Amino acid sequence: MSGFVSDAVVKRLPAYYRHLRELEAQGISQISSQELGERMQLTPSQIRQDINSFGGFGRQGYGYPVKELKDHIRRIMGLDRLHRMIIIGGGRMGQAIANYASFTREGFPTVAIFDADETKIRQSTEEMPIYPIGEMESRLPELEASIAVLAVPVEAAQEMMDRLYALGIRAIWNFAPVDLNYPRDAVVMNVHLSDSLHILSYRMNQMAEEAVRRSNGKG
Amino acid sequence: MSGFVSDAVVKRLPAYYRHLRELEAQGISQISSQELGERMQLTPSQIRQDINSFGGFGRQGYGYPVKELKDHIRRIMGLDRLHRMIIIGGGRMGQAIANYASFTREGFPTVAIFDADETKIRQSTEEMPIYPIGEMESRLPELEASIAVLAVPVEAAQEMMDRLYALGIRAIWNFAPVDLNYPRDAVVMNVHLSDSLHILSYRMNQMAEEAVRRSNGKG
Repeated sequence: MSGFVSDAVVKRLPAYYRHLRELEAQGISQISSQELGERMQLTPSQIRQDINSFGGFGRQGYGYPVKELKDHIRRIMGLDRLHRMIIIGGGRMGQAIANYASFTREGFPTVAIFDADETKIRQSTEEMPIYPIGEMESRLPELEASIAVLAVPVEAAQEMMDRLYALGIRAIWNFAPVDLNYPRDAVVMNVHLSDSLHILSYRMNQMAEEAVRRSNGKG
Repeated sequence: MSGFVSDAVVKRLPAYYRHLRELEAQGISQISSQELGERMQLTPSQIRQDINSFGGFGRQGYGYPVKELKDHIRRIMGLDRLHRMIIIGGGRMGQAIANYASFTREGFPTVAIFDADETKIRQSTEEMPIYPIGEMESRLPELEASIAVLAVPVEAAQEMMDRLYALGIRAIWNFAPVDLNYPRDAVVMNVHLSDSLHILSYRMNQMAEEAVRRSNGKG
């Protein structure tokens, strides 16, 4: 039913999902490409093209059915299933992710944290167990996790990636600021927080330069 | 000196910076578009095109001078300057960002956290003050912050954005999973963590479907 979904469209899928959820919560059942485009800052034709590529819900003159379209996107993103996560690295970032209530609510519960640091392991609770990293191999089968979150220092990231892959983990959510090497049947999604901060900084810089140009009357 | 830098290239700037820093640390002083392309999983012609658009460092047959190119990118990303950050929301995510040593090292120190919760404010220390959100207006001038990090619940995000803008903050690093409205002279960079998780989930789903297709002999 759905055709080829380009990388650019895949990146927009979560935003579609977010906006459709908001619309549904507001009791809106139909939306035109025009209105959805305004919300998402995309052109109506972009919206139509995107939605065609992953579903084909459009009916000329009727707009899109909000709930059906949301449910469809939910399904193709695999959000109708449970994905148990383990977190490697129990520092502040690891703990923040482990305790993000919305991840649990959306089907991504953290079932355990692994850490090398004795003081962190002593903070283990029944709700959020923190195991020694050396127990990863023995603990993993019982945990039935499908996603591993890497919240370790750069130096440890590749080794952890390799160990997790050897243990059958095929999905890695990587918070270490390094590009990992991995086999083709694994999926790695990077969250390079400083990249995002650096882009913000770049845009601040551009805006400041523009302001200078404008005040110099060259703009 | 530099021409128009497209959004796609801007998004790759931090990766260039990361790789060039690594190369410099390894003592490599020159690199060809071929080699840099292999590291960054881009074609050599893409590399040349990118670098031309923001600087024009290429010398046919010599490759790129690693340190100069890195310094140039550092400059256009504004990383040669100090950017003091305040964090709105002292929950786990806010605290994680406040304590990320690498942000401080790279010129983005957190100077204060603001929170509405009395128990959080009591955790205030001299190194990392946590002020009541009601004091934002009076405290901001002395803090000399240029970036505000939004680590608040969705419901509070837009109001905080508006208050920060009214106080002269023009750069927002937004961790709330909502698209904010803001004037054209502000810069907002979103870190929608669940978007990233949802894309990971989508790719896992695709990979599983492909495996099924292959085992059915239809691939």
